[in-house]
Amino acid sequence: MVQLLDDERIDFLLADESMSIIQSATAFAFSLDAVLLAHFASVPKRRGKVLDLCTGNGVIPLLLARKTKVEITGVEIQNRIFSMAERSIELNQLQEQIHVIHGDLKEMKHVLKQSAYDAVTCNPPYFQTSSSKEQNQNEYLTIARHEIYCTLEDVVKACKLHVKPGGKVAMVHRPGRLVDMIALFRKYNIEPKRMQLVFPKMGKEANMLLIEGIRDGKADLKILPPLYIYNEDGTYTEEAKEIIYG
Amino acid sequence: MVQLLDDERIDFLLADESMSIIQSATAFAFSLDAVLLAHFASVPKRRGKVLDLCTGNGVIPLLLARKTKVEITGVEIQNRIFSMAERSIELNQLQEQIHVIHGDLKEMKHVLKQSAYDAVTCNPPYFQTSSSKEQNQNEYLTIARHEIYCTLEDVVKACKLHVKPGGKVAMVHRPGRLVDMIALFRKYNIEPKRMQLVFPKMGKEANMLLIEGIRDGKADLKILPPLYIYNEDGTYTEEAKEIIYG
Repeated sequence: MVQLLDDERIDFLLADESMSIIQSATAFAFSLDAVLLAHFASVPKRRGKVLDLCTGNGVIPLLLARKTKVEITGVEIQNRIFSMAERSIELNQLQEQIHVIHGDLKEMKHVLKQSAYDAVTCNPPYFQTSSSKEQNQNEYLTIARHEIYCTLEDVVKACKLHVKPGGKVAMVHRPGRLVDMIALFRKYNIEPKRMQLVFPKMGKEANMLLIEGIRDGKADLKILPPLYIYNEDGTYTEEAKEIIYG
Repeated sequence: MVQLLDDERIDFLLADESMSIIQSATAFAFSLDAVLLAHFASVPKRRGKVLDLCTGNGVIPLLLARKTKVEITGVEIQNRIFSMAERSIELNQLQEQIHVIHGDLKEMKHVLKQSAYDAVTCNPPYFQTSSSKEQNQNEYLTIARHEIYCTLEDVVKACKLHVKPGGKVAMVHRPGRLVDMIALFRKYNIEPKRMQLVFPKMGKEANMLLIEGIRDGKADLKILPPLYIYNEDGTYTEEAKEIIYG
């Protein structure tokens, strides 16, 4: 069995209880955003390779392993969280398929192949760090959630560097950053092709944005039907259940 | 009474029969897009002024006159259609509030005031004119629907030129052009602030996009709840009825 540190626990990755993941309330626990991104992202089924930046405890590579047989590489900057990812992969005996690298996504130029990945996914830190007061007091969570070690532009630039021409880049973010996201995708020649907005329930403003672009793709964005998470009574919608519980 | 030319007819502008508009199957008839844009756009209620580019038969100024008392100016490049707008305004006795100009929006620099309008609206031609085969055989309709006399960039540039700093620019377009739209808004310092996607019915991809930006605004986009036009049985949704029939 793998070792658990501090307040770490083992959670089921999905309700079907076929996979587990190491989580920690004070270091890293995955959110719905990661689950939705793993569901939304297009990945090759049998040939090719996939890169996941800001991989955290490896939640996205683990979820993607349910839909692809190809090699998946994750990159995580925080050593403690990288270690959670490594042990989570071991826990699921996926060491053959998934590898994680401890390092800074801005410095993968010579560590990972350039223009080489069929798909790159990323659930980046969401918050711009204008004021340290707004930041989380916990350093692990602050780094995971705020643009401390990488800005959105750093992330998009790294996606562009490692994805193949014609390869796909999928990200999740807050709707408030849609404009920045689209501007940066264009700047780095990743043409947005598929977008889905996530609404907590009917009649509310969107609170999440899923977007996928193709490197050097032709301009033509499809906007998928909206995804609603909760019914009026606070239970998951059928569609959300299908994605979350598989 | 106003004179009708060729195949022109008088339609009710809205089902409450309080306003009429001159239409023509071969020259110009308004679409749902214009109705939705007039509903979506923010306009000042009592002070200020509004500009509508690509005004067609004046449908947007006429609809806006239902929600504001301020002066509205429309610009239309096609003489025949400009004349329909002029006569439609007369028909509704709104000559005091609405003025239309026959001219090219690219050449309004010295005709209309610069940095002067509180709000600018535009339902532009949607189609890029890559091939003349794809264009409409009818010249009036071709000019209204294809980027013959103005590209999307010309439109956004004109919006920027005439809207005040802090003023609003609202447009309707196809989702396939969202990326271009956002890139052009940013290029001309119109920060997208409010967006709504229109879906023909639940479960279908979006087929229309409403977007409003603020000149020199701060980045922070809100994505409104989606708007569905039809129920499963092909009747209008309550929300669509409310917008269309007032």
